[in-house]
Amino acid sequence: MIIDLRSDTVTKPSKGMLDAMMSAEVGDDVFREDPTMNALEERIATMFGKEKALFFPSGSMANQVAIKLHTQPGDQVICDKYAHIYNYEVGGVAFHSGATCKLLDGHRGMFTARQVEEAISPSAYYYSQSRLVEVENTTNKGGGACWDFSEIEKIKTVCKTHDLGFHLDGARLWNAMVAKNETPLQYGAAFDSISVCLSKGLGCPVGSVLLGDEILMEKSLSLRKLFGGNMRQVGYLAAAGLYALDHQVERLAEDHKKAKEIGAVLAQLSFIKKVEPIETNIIIFELNDDVDEAHFLNQLLEKNIHIIGMGSGKLRMVTHLDYTDQMHDKLLNELGSI
Amino acid sequence: MIIDLRSDTVTKPSKGMLDAMMSAEVGDDVFREDPTMNALEERIATMFGKEKALFFPSGSMANQVAIKLHTQPGDQVICDKYAHIYNYEVGGVAFHSGATCKLLDGHRGMFTARQVEEAISPSAYYYSQSRLVEVENTTNKGGGACWDFSEIEKIKTVCKTHDLGFHLDGARLWNAMVAKNETPLQYGAAFDSISVCLSKGLGCPVGSVLLGDEILMEKSLSLRKLFGGNMRQVGYLAAAGLYALDHQVERLAEDHKKAKEIGAVLAQLSFIKKVEPIETNIIIFELNDDVDEAHFLNQLLEKNIHIIGMGSGKLRMVTHLDYTDQMHDKLLNELGSI
Amino acid sequence: MIIDLRSDTVTKPSKGMLDAMMSAEVGDDVFREDPTMNALEERIATMFGKEKALFFPSGSMANQVAIKLHTQPGDQVICDKYAHIYNYEVGGVAFHSGATCKLLDGHRGMFTARQVEEAISPSAYYYSQSRLVEVENTTNKGGGACWDFSEIEKIKTVCKTHDLGFHLDGARLWNAMVAKNETPLQYGAAFDSISVCLSKGLGCPVGSVLLGDEILMEKSLSLRKLFGGNMRQVGYLAAAGLYALDHQVERLAEDHKKAKEIGAVLAQLSFIKKVEPIETNIIIFELNDDVDEAHFLNQLLEKNIHIIGMGSGKLRMVTHLDYTDQMHDKLLNELGSI
Amino acid sequence: MIIDLRSDTVTKPSKGMLDAMMSAEVGDDVFREDPTMNALEERIATMFGKEKALFFPSGSMANQVAIKLHTQPGDQVICDKYAHIYNYEVGGVAFHSGATCKLLDGHRGMFTARQVEEAISPSAYYYSQSRLVEVENTTNKGGGACWDFSEIEKIKTVCKTHDLGFHLDGARLWNAMVAKNETPLQYGAAFDSISVCLSKGLGCPVGSVLLGDEILMEKSLSLRKLFGGNMRQVGYLAAAGLYALDHQVERLAEDHKKAKEIGAVLAQLSFIKKVEPIETNIIIFELNDDVDEAHFLNQLLEKNIHIIGMGSGKLRMVTHLDYTDQMHDKLLNELGSI
Repeated sequence: MIIDLRSDTVTKPSKGMLDAMMSAEVGDDVFREDPTMNALEERIATMFGKEKALFFPSGSMANQVAIKLHTQPGDQVICDKYAHIYNYEVGGVAFHSGATCKLLDGHRGMFTARQVEEAISPSAYYYSQSRLVEVENTTNKGGGACWDFSEIEKIKTVCKTHDLGFHLDGARLWNAMVAKNETPLQYGAAFDSISVCLSKGLGCPVGSVLLGDEILMEKSLSLRKLFGGNMRQVGYLAAAGLYALDHQVERLAEDHKKAKEIGAVLAQLSFIKKVEPIETNIIIFELNDDVDEAHFLNQLLEKNIHIIGMGSGKLRMVTHLDYTDQMHDKLLNELGSI
Repeated sequence: MIIDLRSDTVTKPSKGMLDAMMSAEVGDDVFREDPTMNALEERIATMFGKEKALFFPSGSMANQVAIKLHTQPGDQVICDKYAHIYNYEVGGVAFHSGATCKLLDGHRGMFTARQVEEAISPSAYYYSQSRLVEVENTTNKGGGACWDFSEIEKIKTVCKTHDLGFHLDGARLWNAMVAKNETPLQYGAAFDSISVCLSKGLGCPVGSVLLGDEILMEKSLSLRKLFGGNMRQVGYLAAAGLYALDHQVERLAEDHKKAKEIGAVLAQLSFIKKVEPIETNIIIFELNDDVDEAHFLNQLLEKNIHIIGMGSGKLRMVTHLDYTDQMHDKLLNELGSI
Repeated sequence: MIIDLRSDTVTKPSKGMLDAMMSAEVGDDVFREDPTMNALEERIATMFGKEKALFFPSGSMANQVAIKLHTQPGDQVICDKYAHIYNYEVGGVAFHSGATCKLLDGHRGMFTARQVEEAISPSAYYYSQSRLVEVENTTNKGGGACWDFSEIEKIKTVCKTHDLGFHLDGARLWNAMVAKNETPLQYGAAFDSISVCLSKGLGCPVGSVLLGDEILMEKSLSLRKLFGGNMRQVGYLAAAGLYALDHQVERLAEDHKKAKEIGAVLAQLSFIKKVEPIETNIIIFELNDDVDEAHFLNQLLEKNIHIIGMGSGKLRMVTHLDYTDQMHDKLLNELGSI
Repeated sequence: MIIDLRSDTVTKPSKGMLDAMMSAEVGDDVFREDPTMNALEERIATMFGKEKALFFPSGSMANQVAIKLHTQPGDQVICDKYAHIYNYEVGGVAFHSGATCKLLDGHRGMFTARQVEEAISPSAYYYSQSRLVEVENTTNKGGGACWDFSEIEKIKTVCKTHDLGFHLDGARLWNAMVAKNETPLQYGAAFDSISVCLSKGLGCPVGSVLLGDEILMEKSLSLRKLFGGNMRQVGYLAAAGLYALDHQVERLAEDHKKAKEIGAVLAQLSFIKKVEPIETNIIIFELNDDVDEAHFLNQLLEKNIHIIGMGSGKLRMVTHLDYTDQMHDKLLNELGSI
């Protein structure tokens, strides 16, 4: 039994999901004729109260296309210094959009409306112009922290006042909504564009979805083609998404519960310096300065437990659909015996 | 019965392919742990005698990443005025690579080594520098025409002499190899990088593969991530590719045979001005000047026959795996009765 | 006595121009406080009936900023295959704007409204969109040919109908206007943006000017800063421009007369295959196939006559302000004696 | 008498400089035939012990070309959060180079070798790769602070170890060298590329110079053309540079002395909260929270004293060549009387 907590992306489709995939009706999505994909896109758009949704092969592409939609080369994107788009998308903001990230010094990847307002560039001709504010919920590098929705609404007001676009990287938004008892409609009303992932907590093999109004999404269709993200008979992937929406959203609460239980055990271990607060399915912790990280990771590997280092002495575990109760019991035991 | 000859991309997986897909073993390909994908990439690399292969969600992404691999912003790509990368990839050469297409005035999308040599820019500091020659085989806009392999070898020599990269857009290379009795190893030896498509003649739902040496392909992995083309449990799509390589390559000869038979019928119709030579599965023809194109397309639609216009009075049909003998008989009859 | 006909850019300021430069009042143009520059920009804007003008360190920067003003990455610029922006600006259209040149097969660098109309891309999501038509007058690679103004007006109508920007590369527009007896106001009314050069026929040491309406030019000020074209005490260069407008426009007719006289002599030489029609100050001619180009250029060099090759067996001479009557007499004699 | 302390860019050429300019021998620099420019470039290259130097119309272009020389799209530039290239070049790093600034949290715009080492990205395929470290000396936003040269040497070692380029934005390097008694040869030996400005403390009307080895500078010539920075008879501007090097370097010490005297007066004013340490010619200070910035700036304006706000409640004065002793006396008096 291998316990893989490197990421919630490692899950494999369940029997039910695979059956749904296998029986999907498909067509050529480049001609927009895949009925299952059309159904998935319409369903997610409706859930969030947005006019249109569009499937993407990855969350990175969905985010990068969104940034391109809102900016022109030379413009500025206001985001947290922990933002996934800045740290983990291979420099895509500059590469694809020629835009610059104006970094905010937030807390666990989250910032305030006040910080946004102070970061907006003066309108003089010799300044890069601010065009977009980007929020990530839950925050990956921030340890799965969930935003306070009232702060999001304040930022939205700042965006309206200053004519800035407002994008949500919702790679793990499902986790945030389950944890905080929020609804997709709330988020749909707050943001101009939202990306949500089907392949992390939801357990699909592939895909993210971008949401927005008709004008934005018509352009995003063209940009998806330009980025090379237009695929053909994608109904198989869409069927997995539809299945996940029916069966694998509410259960995220279990992942959160397990994550907190892991955190509680870690907090009691003498060789661990700090465990960050756990709100969803991500656990970030630090070893004591005298503990060798590579050695510790190896000890876990020998017990068939896979986790990853995040740099700067931080380690990360992520719970997910394929992390069973049995694995959970074993992990908690093993941690105690190191 | 709908006869869809708009493109060979409209095919749906056969029962056999679907069974292969659904029994695929999968893993997280972002961690490079999908065994079926690894098997597909190794198999295709071996077929072409290249060190590495990498799967892409689309042929456009495979081509655009290849162009980025060979060029830097400001550089020049020498290609035919009919090239897919220039005409049908949404301006991607400039968007992604900041590169300029130096267009050759070829014949049916094919040009000569002499033309390449004359197009290479002088080395003076005030000229954009030529870095890459791109060939498409078969040529899409050129009506499925196949290159003379000896000309490709001459161009290769020019590329070596002038230190230019040499890329093959092999979206329909399988058709060319079947039609001309050529081998993947020949092509692998001639080009620095090759993209081949799994979802056109080969009938897979999704995907293209890029081939090259280790250094190039290591960079292409990073670029695929940057473009947003890294997907997770992609073994389902890889399994389709493996099935197609086993069962759906040789049969392309049938598509070619049918295409030629359609061409022969078209050539006898009084309202048709010209049918371009047919070498593979693409038929391009022109109506007489006094025939209204929209009216003609509508007449076909009423008979459940779908084809597309290519602009400039040209129409295109493409035969494929899902175009059955029964459809073929019906089409030939219907054409005669218009 | 060196006779330098490589380009009309080689001229040096006359005594009068130098005096004007030396007595110029200057200020910091980045703060927009250089009075001489402000006077030059206002004067040229008024001449062309445009709201604003902006000085640039080069014609390439003026053109490239104009293209950026009219396009977004992925867009298409419709221009002639001979266009300076395509051939001689180091791939800048792709580098700076991420845009693609849709090349028209014109005559001596000039095309028709009909050709423009046929080149406009379909509005489908999978096509790069046409946004700008670019015209060059006189045409450099076309041998100083002058456009028929009525064709320009027809193209303008096409641009309005299809919502395309319309830019004029007027590097040698002064020559065209003198040769065809046209006015700046005509051109100002026809185009959305115009670049004119001060350092070719007009004889200034440095600079081009971009013209447009207020919105466009406000953006161009920001782009000039971004491109690194914002300079400080530029009144010295502006003073040269003002002097040239007063004293060195009408005299272009002399350059044209001399160019035609050179052409007439060349046409009679047995070793010359062809002299292109001469309308302004550029002479393009071809040697017989059995004449070695390098040898011929060397023969001229030995006589202190400098001209340049343009590739493809074409040679170019350009007459200008510093090409005196004495030089002219000598050149005509020397040509006869080769 | 207007006292303009907004920037050291507002200076106008002295009589001596103007005479030098107007007696300059010039030529077409695009053909590299301007003798005065060639002399300036050679002189500066020799001063710094670099193989080649190249003149640019602005420091922004010199820096941006340097960044392009060292990076490819998608790469990372390590620099301080105060860096001019990040804050004041209109988003150029992303626009021109498609590169991302990895921001260090330094002190007054200066950071340590240790910080650099920690910021270098892991070499995994899914990270943007670090390619360049950029240092600014003196730091503009840091208030004219001067680097400790030994830290620069430590950073150089880190760059060599990790194969990173090392660029110096020396817009006010002359000030640093005068203040710290350092030599151009020291800097030439430490950095791969250096930009120095002629139009700030040195008092020239226009221009910066980029320095590097032959290979780098050959590419920079091509990039300067691409950016539109190639100008024609630029000897007038070069002559100003040569004059400044002869007569206007050592005198920077006077600007520094005056700046410190201004700072001493400011420090005693009750409505001023803080004056940053003054090392060269830049004074940055903050008003008490209850003092209205706009009102204060207006009070100064009424006394013909011009200074600028930097945002976040900071104000800046810069002393320079045209800030006379008489102005200095008046300013010190006026400040006391507010």
